[in-house]
Amino acid sequence: MTREPLGVAVIGYSFMGKAHSNAWRNVRAFYPGVPAVRQQVLVGRDEAAVKEAASHYGWAESATDWRSVIERDDVDVVDVCTPGDSHAEITLAALAAGKHVLVEKPLSNTVAESEAMLAAAREAEARGVRAMIGFNYRRVPALALTRQLIADGRIGAVRQVRAAYLQDWLADADAPMTWRLRKEQAGSGVLGDLGSHVVDQLHYLLGDPVVAASGHLRTFVPERTGPQGREPVTVDDAAWATLETGSGVVASVEVSRMATGRKNGLTLEVYGDRGSVAFDLERLNELMVLDRPDDVAAGARRVLVTETDHPWLSAWWPPGHVLGWDHTFTSQAADFLTAIAEGTSPQPSFADGLAVQRVLAAIEQSAGDDGRRVAVREGA
Amino acid sequence: MTREPLGVAVIGYSFMGKAHSNAWRNVRAFYPGVPAVRQQVLVGRDEAAVKEAASHYGWAESATDWRSVIERDDVDVVDVCTPGDSHAEITLAALAAGKHVLVEKPLSNTVAESEAMLAAAREAEARGVRAMIGFNYRRVPALALTRQLIADGRIGAVRQVRAAYLQDWLADADAPMTWRLRKEQAGSGVLGDLGSHVVDQLHYLLGDPVVAASGHLRTFVPERTGPQGREPVTVDDAAWATLETGSGVVASVEVSRMATGRKNGLTLEVYGDRGSVAFDLERLNELMVLDRPDDVAAGARRVLVTETDHPWLSAWWPPGHVLGWDHTFTSQAADFLTAIAEGTSPQPSFADGLAVQRVLAAIEQSAGDDGRRVAVREGA
Amino acid sequence: MTREPLGVAVIGYSFMGKAHSNAWRNVRAFYPGVPAVRQQVLVGRDEAAVKEAASHYGWAESATDWRSVIERDDVDVVDVCTPGDSHAEITLAALAAGKHVLVEKPLSNTVAESEAMLAAAREAEARGVRAMIGFNYRRVPALALTRQLIADGRIGAVRQVRAAYLQDWLADADAPMTWRLRKEQAGSGVLGDLGSHVVDQLHYLLGDPVVAASGHLRTFVPERTGPQGREPVTVDDAAWATLETGSGVVASVEVSRMATGRKNGLTLEVYGDRGSVAFDLERLNELMVLDRPDDVAAGARRVLVTETDHPWLSAWWPPGHVLGWDHTFTSQAADFLTAIAEGTSPQPSFADGLAVQRVLAAIEQSAGDDGRRVAVREGA
Amino acid sequence: MTREPLGVAVIGYSFMGKAHSNAWRNVRAFYPGVPAVRQQVLVGRDEAAVKEAASHYGWAESATDWRSVIERDDVDVVDVCTPGDSHAEITLAALAAGKHVLVEKPLSNTVAESEAMLAAAREAEARGVRAMIGFNYRRVPALALTRQLIADGRIGAVRQVRAAYLQDWLADADAPMTWRLRKEQAGSGVLGDLGSHVVDQLHYLLGDPVVAASGHLRTFVPERTGPQGREPVTVDDAAWATLETGSGVVASVEVSRMATGRKNGLTLEVYGDRGSVAFDLERLNELMVLDRPDDVAAGARRVLVTETDHPWLSAWWPPGHVLGWDHTFTSQAADFLTAIAEGTSPQPSFADGLAVQRVLAAIEQSAGDDGRRVAVREGA
Repeated sequence: MTREPLGVAVIGYSFMGKAHSNAWRNVRAFYPGVPAVRQQVLVGRDEAAVKEAASHYGWAESATDWRSVIERDDVDVVDVCTPGDSHAEITLAALAAGKHVLVEKPLSNTVAESEAMLAAAREAEARGVRAMIGFNYRRVPALALTRQLIADGRIGAVRQVRAAYLQDWLADADAPMTWRLRKEQAGSGVLGDLGSHVVDQLHYLLGDPVVAASGHLRTFVPERTGPQGREPVTVDDAAWATLETGSGVVASVEVSRMATGRKNGLTLEVYGDRGSVAFDLERLNELMVLDRPDDVAAGARRVLVTETDHPWLSAWWPPGHVLGWDHTFTSQAADFLTAIAEGTSPQPSFADGLAVQRVLAAIEQSAGDDGRRVAVREGA
Repeated sequence: MTREPLGVAVIGYSFMGKAHSNAWRNVRAFYPGVPAVRQQVLVGRDEAAVKEAASHYGWAESATDWRSVIERDDVDVVDVCTPGDSHAEITLAALAAGKHVLVEKPLSNTVAESEAMLAAAREAEARGVRAMIGFNYRRVPALALTRQLIADGRIGAVRQVRAAYLQDWLADADAPMTWRLRKEQAGSGVLGDLGSHVVDQLHYLLGDPVVAASGHLRTFVPERTGPQGREPVTVDDAAWATLETGSGVVASVEVSRMATGRKNGLTLEVYGDRGSVAFDLERLNELMVLDRPDDVAAGARRVLVTETDHPWLSAWWPPGHVLGWDHTFTSQAADFLTAIAEGTSPQPSFADGLAVQRVLAAIEQSAGDDGRRVAVREGA
Repeated sequence: MTREPLGVAVIGYSFMGKAHSNAWRNVRAFYPGVPAVRQQVLVGRDEAAVKEAASHYGWAESATDWRSVIERDDVDVVDVCTPGDSHAEITLAALAAGKHVLVEKPLSNTVAESEAMLAAAREAEARGVRAMIGFNYRRVPALALTRQLIADGRIGAVRQVRAAYLQDWLADADAPMTWRLRKEQAGSGVLGDLGSHVVDQLHYLLGDPVVAASGHLRTFVPERTGPQGREPVTVDDAAWATLETGSGVVASVEVSRMATGRKNGLTLEVYGDRGSVAFDLERLNELMVLDRPDDVAAGARRVLVTETDHPWLSAWWPPGHVLGWDHTFTSQAADFLTAIAEGTSPQPSFADGLAVQRVLAAIEQSAGDDGRRVAVREGA
Repeated sequence: MTREPLGVAVIGYSFMGKAHSNAWRNVRAFYPGVPAVRQQVLVGRDEAAVKEAASHYGWAESATDWRSVIERDDVDVVDVCTPGDSHAEITLAALAAGKHVLVEKPLSNTVAESEAMLAAAREAEARGVRAMIGFNYRRVPALALTRQLIADGRIGAVRQVRAAYLQDWLADADAPMTWRLRKEQAGSGVLGDLGSHVVDQLHYLLGDPVVAASGHLRTFVPERTGPQGREPVTVDDAAWATLETGSGVVASVEVSRMATGRKNGLTLEVYGDRGSVAFDLERLNELMVLDRPDDVAAGARRVLVTETDHPWLSAWWPPGHVLGWDHTFTSQAADFLTAIAEGTSPQPSFADGLAVQRVLAAIEQSAGDDGRRVAVREGA
């Protein structure tokens, strides 16, 4: 039923645009069962730059006007890789035009926009149009294996999660001012940028929504110098939260851009009553797994998650031949294409994206009230 | 001036009594410069049991009445290893009797008692009597090295600390009820037991008091079965806190007895603006140190803290010959004896012990108010 | 001067053909400065299978006769990914036809063939035709950084190297017989397969040829069952060697397909008189580096080799976004294209490939003489 | 039957004398079931120095003449901690005097002396006199657990062992000349010093004697400067061997005093057909264990060997409270005392010590013949 090859347009050509382009270029080489795709058009505001990027990244064309692109008959999939403040507008228009939409996280910069997007996605789904949010770490094989092990009861009932996402690119107080540090443009600081990944993983791994949050925010370097001179930093450099899920799991969360020495340290420790799991994104191919705690040789196993029976791995290389960060986007694209072909709902959904934002909003609200616990807003 | 050998009495002969006995038995073998000691008397309530322990642990005598022991002329040092609820009474009496006193942590079970103990210690100090609290982890060479590296500016200005102390001996919901899980006897749960070590390390490493706290407590297994049948657990199984120091450092703390797979996992990560340090008590002889973050080969170094220029190490074995947990008590005893001999104030002091308790009290208070930030009580 | 885009043909479409196809498909997306390439034709013996692979892997065409392909005017580069026994024939023909040639390791199955290939490559080079052997691990950023650190004197004068390459896919004695375990087809066992990578790394990292070898071979499972029933295994399952370089470095080498639990464990430890470096391919993005051994906080640093000033990394993702095994082939293709464009000699050369084979031959010869040391044959 | 307390004399008071004194001082505190001991006399040549050491280490007396000491009626146990060249003389005399003898490794400096010692020990055993050699690493709990796991079949049939013992105290070419680097005094270099531990562990863990050896020796720094000026180094700085056991296991061994960054790196990797075990003495309390290789979450477990069901651990501290290097000597003393009390043969025996020396002799002989394999001499 799906017309093949599916024409794809990516809106945005910088960091995320490069990563998504890579996924579309390679998806069929590793997942030959998915619908064929045609890298039709890469969209950006700088005509010369996007043209050059399109040429290198394998796109047939480039364009500067996303509005006309999403109307094109030869475009079936719109992949939104722009900054968060334009996600809602592009997505709503693309869904209205009947295009399948993949949106990079965050779903949008505000809960209100995200609610509108979810409503639009639900309406579109009734017409057979698919929508998905790009939390790419759901396609880290070690994390998918974690979810599977938890679901299989290998670590028993989960009680505590200790989570962090630590980077250090702002540790130097002389690092320059950028738009990412202005609240009006970036929406939020590290909480939205990295905290969103952490909260989505909690939801993904546990299948259990966060219902209450207590949080604190901190801007360690309150002013930085940019092209316009000295300027206030209006977003958080670091954030801390204690979260509680519907079933009573407690999760501690710490996110920072000031953790000198940590480059991309998304770390998760999940403690159940019969075992535990630990993960560090800097060691993306590994998972520490403890079960059978009563064995004389009990301990946390370092699992190299590169076996053919691990999630997505049969698509790639023989055991021990490790994957990189970008492979997660390729697997994400494959799963999205499969959902389109099979007429199923791709995961994570816009509802998942909205759920994350509501948790982040509760953390911010709590931080504004000296850390007092706040209930996360529920409902569709 | 010090009469040698100093006669020592240890009050208590179970876990801590065994560890402290080991320290007194060995201190001169490794620290020949300290005053000689005589293991005079081990005190306990069960006459037969304490007699047998005294025989094995190298004591000349055993006794059951601590009151008469602290009055003896041949006892110069009283080492209090009983449960926390008797610390104040024994310590006050021993100081009044002119004995030098070492008290196992916690200083006592209540802030009020600890305040009285601090007052007594100050009064005694004027008479040349020394008092010290036994936070033995201050004598972990790797942690003393951490303090030294921070003080030397090797990691720059500290901004964040991520700390935890995780054990798992209560992870099994069928583990039996004990007195440690009754608030009236134990005072508190994991917060007091393990959280106290964490807070003392913050103070020790940073030299910067915690001034505000936001916290949460949780009892995951609210009832357990003991000899008297099913009983409520009235202390916390796990605790979380976000702390702030006087100079603005933010420290996250997580402590638990339910973290399956962690046996004695006191972990500390200290992030400065030019480097970071990480420690795990399960790898007591190691320290991860990152400095010079701009080097092409920057990264966290695994330092094996067994070199002769590392704290206390020249007393022990050649490089690479690792120490164990119990060696910290021997070094602690050596430092206490040195302070007695030199007429200086041993560290950590009762004031340090009280400071820790006030932070823990603030965490508990905050937990009772849904996590709202609480100022830590200050002053002598 | 180079005609662009360069037409590429890959001969072979299984494991290595897939990895090389991936490199050609992606090279310009990450290395926009290299000559443009056209994925012209993928060659294999099974017409239907190679056609399907070509379609998925991004090739314009497929073919079954490599001889006609290497004569085509629209083919400029021939990339030989067949088993080792056909490397010589294809390579000699392609060089004679004036095509640039990239050959997967090993250069060939015999020293004699490799000598002929080297002679042909030298003759072709005079005509501006480039030849390269595909030891892809030379493009692991951490290993290139190792070479650079050694060359910069960061670890002082090298004395010892401890190397291993351990896998476990034959650990199960019931694993089936395959052509790889027949000497007449495979040439050798683990020594040629994995030992070749180790020896090439020694040459690459040290810039110092192995001149003497002492070795031992072992076949732990002497018979296995295949489609034709029970059969003898005629190659080695594991090999050990003690090697000496021209400058007196001693390297120990252990390779095995029976090391249960090791999936792709190429480990290298290089000890100099002022430092050391350690690497494990299962943690491809990391390097352990020790220098300044007299520092109070000396120790092996875990360097996450993902910084923009690390080899090849500026082409890829931001710091902390790790690479996978396949990225090494893309960087290898980029370097090969750069050499073609710039008219320089790509590295590693056929001479490098021959040098490796001569060392392996010396190890085998020594193993046949009870381990007695053998001089490695020298000269062009 | 055993007269208690047993009077102990230690001959030698430097590094090993200190470690053994520590064991005798503490053994009953942790192993209350063993016979009581009296630290009677510490023996050394320097009267003042040994007197001071005796005082610090808890000995009742000191002495300078070992001959008279071993004749004393109040001495029941003689513990030989002198350099290897006097082991035979002291041991033979002590056994003749009817004393139980513990000898630090190596048994002696020559195979001939060791053979005489074994004969004397066997003769003495008939009279109820016990003799033991002090390979203290047999009392590392993690290594004893390794032996147990292998014996229980947890890793299947062993095929390969990869072993090393790496230190770096001679890495600096300016490190001074010492008697340890003169063959006439030291007997051998690193091969005897560290290689002996490795070979004993092979025998201990596998229960399978080494029967053939191929080896190489190297002195990287052939001259050093000492108090007498520039002198040749006449022993090996590093050694390599490939060993084969009676049942066909192949073990590679590398030992060095030049491995910059390794302080006390005894590392052992044992590969069986169903699992593997890895150990590093610098992490004495840990063991990496892999079994059940077909599990979806297979991997090497980090076992913290501090549980009460681990070897010797019930004598010490609660789980997670790690031991140090010196605790192995205390457990060794306990086992020796138990054997005395129970009238059994303590392990490792003099036969075990001799077996190690014969393997080392075979390695040296092979090294003198360019690495050609040599059979290890057998028989009593």
